[in-house]
Amino acid sequence: MIQSKIPKRPQVGTALAVGSLLVALTGVRTVSAETTLERTAARLRDRALASPIAWQLLESLTVEVGQRFAGTSGDRAAVAWAEAKMRELGLENVRSEPVTVPRWVRGEARGRIVAPYPQELMLIALGGSVGTSGIGEIGATGEIGGTGEAGIEAEVVEVADLEALEKLSDEAVAGKIVFFNKRMERRRDGSSYGETVRVRSRGPSAAATKGAVAVLIRSVGTGTHRFPHTGALRYADDAPRVPAAALAVPDADILELQIRRGGPVRFHLFLGSHTLEDTESANVIGEVVGRERPDEIVLISGHLDSWDVGSGALDDGAGCAISLGAAKLISELETAPRRTVRVVLFANEEFGLSGARAYSEAHRESLGKHQLAIESDFGAGRVWRFAASVRPEAMVATENLAKLLGPLDIVHDRTGARGGADLLFLHPARVPIADLTQDGTHYFDFHHSADDTLDKVDPEALAQNLAAYTTLVYYAAEIETSFFPAPERPEPPRR
Amino acid sequence: MIQSKIPKRPQVGTALAVGSLLVALTGVRTVSAETTLERTAARLRDRALASPIAWQLLESLTVEVGQRFAGTSGDRAAVAWAEAKMRELGLENVRSEPVTVPRWVRGEARGRIVAPYPQELMLIALGGSVGTSGIGEIGATGEIGGTGEAGIEAEVVEVADLEALEKLSDEAVAGKIVFFNKRMERRRDGSSYGETVRVRSRGPSAAATKGAVAVLIRSVGTGTHRFPHTGALRYADDAPRVPAAALAVPDADILELQIRRGGPVRFHLFLGSHTLEDTESANVIGEVVGRERPDEIVLISGHLDSWDVGSGALDDGAGCAISLGAAKLISELETAPRRTVRVVLFANEEFGLSGARAYSEAHRESLGKHQLAIESDFGAGRVWRFAASVRPEAMVATENLAKLLGPLDIVHDRTGARGGADLLFLHPARVPIADLTQDGTHYFDFHHSADDTLDKVDPEALAQNLAAYTTLVYYAAEIETSFFPAPERPEPPRR
Repeated sequence: MIQSKIPKRPQVGTALAVGSLLVALTGVRTVSAETTLERTAARLRDRALASPIAWQLLESLTVEVGQRFAGTSGDRAAVAWAEAKMRELGLENVRSEPVTVPRWVRGEARGRIVAPYPQELMLIALGGSVGTSGIGEIGATGEIGGTGEAGIEAEVVEVADLEALEKLSDEAVAGKIVFFNKRMERRRDGSSYGETVRVRSRGPSAAATKGAVAVLIRSVGTGTHRFPHTGALRYADDAPRVPAAALAVPDADILELQIRRGGPVRFHLFLGSHTLEDTESANVIGEVVGRERPDEIVLISGHLDSWDVGSGALDDGAGCAISLGAAKLISELETAPRRTVRVVLFANEEFGLSGARAYSEAHRESLGKHQLAIESDFGAGRVWRFAASVRPEAMVATENLAKLLGPLDIVHDRTGARGGADLLFLHPARVPIADLTQDGTHYFDFHHSADDTLDKVDPEALAQNLAAYTTLVYYAAEIETSFFPAPERPEPPRR
Repeated sequence: MIQSKIPKRPQVGTALAVGSLLVALTGVRTVSAETTLERTAARLRDRALASPIAWQLLESLTVEVGQRFAGTSGDRAAVAWAEAKMRELGLENVRSEPVTVPRWVRGEARGRIVAPYPQELMLIALGGSVGTSGIGEIGATGEIGGTGEAGIEAEVVEVADLEALEKLSDEAVAGKIVFFNKRMERRRDGSSYGETVRVRSRGPSAAATKGAVAVLIRSVGTGTHRFPHTGALRYADDAPRVPAAALAVPDADILELQIRRGGPVRFHLFLGSHTLEDTESANVIGEVVGRERPDEIVLISGHLDSWDVGSGALDDGAGCAISLGAAKLISELETAPRRTVRVVLFANEEFGLSGARAYSEAHRESLGKHQLAIESDFGAGRVWRFAASVRPEAMVATENLAKLLGPLDIVHDRTGARGGADLLFLHPARVPIADLTQDGTHYFDFHHSADDTLDKVDPEALAQNLAAYTTLVYYAAEIETSFFPAPERPEPPRR
């Protein structure tokens, strides 16, 4: 086939030339063969752009469910909502596939500077943190930092990041509360998150290994409002489990400025966090069954769970609304697409990817039948980038798809897709992956905070998202060409 | 005197002409007489514009004291801070004048929609509210809305404003929770506050008179973040005292959208608010003693108290910092100004104007010696407007003063000054009042909320404030002309 002559991973610099070359090489045959497909896709795109359905779905989820943290009553309400909504939209094969999820309870969180200048500060437990009453049981140095029901009081030692912590002696850390004071930069692609979030995930155990009794971090977020940002920590197996909390940005400023005054700063932390028995949640699934190859799947997804402190409008109500809305619009076509469009609303992305893991296990036998998978899980800013990792022979299709997305102001990044976190377990099976990357400039102002509410979503940007995802999913489901298998990943995925 | 021919209250339309006329009329004599004054004032203005002192003071107050609600330990810390800071700055006659203040305790606040779609909402007690455990004692209809320690649960009835409430029958309100769902408009001059805040101050008693068991309001604020805005309510003597709370704007949206779905909405409210015995606070006062007429006073002020939920950076740490900074800069002149510059940091503005009342009583005998009084209590946006209410013969001085303020992009409003809330009790004594009005476009995003923190203040705008206030205060303290008495107020002051 002509397409096999195309280099496997064209670089961005040569991308435009390759694109033009492809059009030249494939010529009239492709254009004529794909005319109906492209015409329908473009019509669908424009209909989606004018459709209020994603907004209506997102409003419904945030107003009628709200928070839906794994294992809570909100989670159960969300599963019921999603099933009912899929049926209402007319999707087929609607079902909930069981997923076992952990059940962590945030409890109350209080923190205050005791000296030199007493102040209550706003903070939030990191996801998975033990409470302050528990630390006596796990060998922390209770005699230096006080322990027990009433919380922990200890001197604060400030470090910039994990590397700065490593340079401190154990003596400088033992019995203290380590304060990771790392600022997150604002960037459109959110790439600063990965750089900053390490202090949240790995900081607690790194500090505990050196004898710290608790950990505070400056919230991993770009906002300046007084909302602390939660998110999961990851305790190492060989370190004591110490309580860990994030300060709101203005509160981290106050702690920093008291530390800058030179004397010792003492802090009192109370966290009522604790963990209950695992419980049940579900991946909620609905389909538009394909007319010709119903066993081949184009998977569009978001995660149904949220953190427990906001309405989860951006994270990831938007992804759920876009996925459901796209399937609905495709289901309204006169003829169903060639392959099955499958909406998966994953359980518990936030606190351990439980739903993603369960899906990959439950559907192991059919992963080779997945034409493409995509997840929207980066808010609802306008999509500005399209990327796909498909078999090289399908590259002409992605070029044509990119052209369909062009009117939405979306550029084609030919370096390959990264995929949402819930697609992680599909990579080893070489499931083709696509990205439609949102503008994340303001995403981390709200992410994982109580301020993640419906009003932070721009209805026009959400409609542009719907248009992009609908176009892509329909195109992948209808096109003759198979996208499977994706190239092997040269390195582990970034998340 | 030439000035006596000038009309007493020139209108804005003719203002420019009047200004030019004054210059022409007063001519060379005024210019030569005032040259040193104006040159010194201009030099002081430019020095203030480059000075970091207001920022340093504000940082110190917010980092070393934080919240300072009347009667709390923070209030006492603030009084100590202010006295110490005045001495450190080299002010004279530093003292605390005792003020009795009420002691209201916010306690815990929780609210949730019980039906049709359960959701926890973020809310805050209005200042002075009774708790939900107290309402059984004061005759509310306990048998319809539940009462007691566990809070109140009742159906919600939504009204747009006080007028809409009045149109409802008592039957439609009795036993229910009234939800005042009035939106506040964003305006530079903050004039929408007065229009909107009536539901906060008067709504609870208006609803209780019709048999309501509790009141919720949409926060009186322009922000879209999830911070409810507190502020004082005013119980009428003849109405049952019902608990009242403000919902954050996104939370008011959720309640509104559940109500829009048509069925009855039930809400559960718990407020732990209660009132303790009155306690002591203080107006903190320091001076730069005048060289010629030390008994004549130019009063510059802010209020030292804040609400209990933020750092009170905008409300009114900025006013305190500006007042202290201005006095400090004036004290650094080679010769003290003709009159005494008096800094007054008022106690408890927020919850009853206790300090303002105490000042007017303690200084009743000398109010006739007050050349001018000004208060900064509208945040720290750039000053855009100058106004003064002085004796008509002093109008030429205010015209010259306006010229000195011109380079700071401040316009002269000749319709007269309104004065800060703490100056209210000075009006009957005809104390001359000035305004240097801040740009309030974003003030009500943060006002009375936990989000009123240092990072919301722009250091450059704060320095422009300092320049304006310093110029005005110095000018009024130095000028030969007496400003006393102000014209009688044609109507009661707006606040």
